[in-house]
Amino acid sequence: MAAQNIYDDPDFLAGYATLNRQVHGLDGAAEWPELKKLLPDLAGKRVADLGCGFGWFSRWAEQQGAASVLGVDVSTKMLERAEAETDSATVSYRCIDLDVLELDADAYDVVFSSLTLHYLLDLDRLMATMAQAVTPGGSLVFSVEHPIFSAPTSQQFETSDDGNRIWPLDNYLVEGKRVTNWFVDGVVKQHRTVATYVNAVIDAGFILDRIVEFGSPASAVGENPEQRDDWHRPWFLLLGATRASD
Amino acid sequence: MAAQNIYDDPDFLAGYATLNRQVHGLDGAAEWPELKKLLPDLAGKRVADLGCGFGWFSRWAEQQGAASVLGVDVSTKMLERAEAETDSATVSYRCIDLDVLELDADAYDVVFSSLTLHYLLDLDRLMATMAQAVTPGGSLVFSVEHPIFSAPTSQQFETSDDGNRIWPLDNYLVEGKRVTNWFVDGVVKQHRTVATYVNAVIDAGFILDRIVEFGSPASAVGENPEQRDDWHRPWFLLLGATRASD
Repeated sequence: MAAQNIYDDPDFLAGYATLNRQVHGLDGAAEWPELKKLLPDLAGKRVADLGCGFGWFSRWAEQQGAASVLGVDVSTKMLERAEAETDSATVSYRCIDLDVLELDADAYDVVFSSLTLHYLLDLDRLMATMAQAVTPGGSLVFSVEHPIFSAPTSQQFETSDDGNRIWPLDNYLVEGKRVTNWFVDGVVKQHRTVATYVNAVIDAGFILDRIVEFGSPASAVGENPEQRDDWHRPWFLLLGATRASD
Repeated sequence: MAAQNIYDDPDFLAGYATLNRQVHGLDGAAEWPELKKLLPDLAGKRVADLGCGFGWFSRWAEQQGAASVLGVDVSTKMLERAEAETDSATVSYRCIDLDVLELDADAYDVVFSSLTLHYLLDLDRLMATMAQAVTPGGSLVFSVEHPIFSAPTSQQFETSDDGNRIWPLDNYLVEGKRVTNWFVDGVVKQHRTVATYVNAVIDAGFILDRIVEFGSPASAVGENPEQRDDWHRPWFLLLGATRASD
């Protein structure tokens, strides 16, 4: 059984490509400044970008002087665009489902994944794959949809009995499949708790460095009042960890 | 400025003393089996119990063969009962506000705190105090009210527009004072995010071992259906960490 590959759905992809972060790349992603802080200097590093999409991060890593960058994605359509927009022999792309990905041992200094792990069916398997692929002292940095965001039956704000704007949280501790409508109906993600992500990282042999529960900062909210909603329920969970020495 | 000491309020204390966990001790606390798993073997260890209340954990630690146990609490009334119920020279009690507590360097193998840190005004100060007090390789284990529990303006379940039972989450990322009614009106707690607790532990010099987002297990829910609510919003956050070697 494989995870849904919604990114090869033409209607989904057409909508997805209009997102700020796909039009403007990393600088169009509100959480990028915080995610970047979790990364080490990439100069001379061997980097893997799991769920690379159109290759925005893979190309940025190349610009930072990475020795090599492997971008991995399950979507052939996204990788076609990534290939077309990449003009460097330092970056290579590979099309494979992360639920069956294998990586060489000690072959990477940095493994990065942006907003992808919440699609995986078997998180522990990929964690183990990443842990043996990262050299001791190397880095794992990823972002996922925040579990408070992914948990509820309805992912729409409501008004409370007291008249407050509320996020209708339910089933936070009930992990598993969630089906949402996002550009198309029936997008399937896997809800996991914060503890599950944190403990999976530790159990795989990483030392946790930091987590960030990301919501748009006050400065952004000034320009865009609906981002005030992020203060009620964080949007993304970011995590940085270091591979323990053997 | 000191944190509110609600535990010396006679009306509060009278209500609080009727809780299952105060009548039956550790075995009356639903999260105790999970919290216990985060603890090392206490035999021969020097233990500090910060926010010891009636001394249930302090006495349990003594029964496990701890070399010494220091119970600390701000409530003189709770410590009077703790002293009266403790019959061992291994356990001593000290009455002081944890926001100004100082502890000797490298003087403890295990620092434990149950459902207390969410009252503190200055978490980072106590983290630093605990970090220098725990010997390298020693343990920090604590529980707090889960941030999803403590965040909302209203801490009562509601019914969503779709008819689902929901936890009306708001202001998760807005840390600070929360005032609730719990046995008496106006009980003051400090809301902090999961990330703030986790990062405070790491920044103080601990290596994170595990977090648990605790909700009553299915077996308990069978006997007590309202505990199903825990699945919607976890009740407690438990954390275990090890002091890094210098």
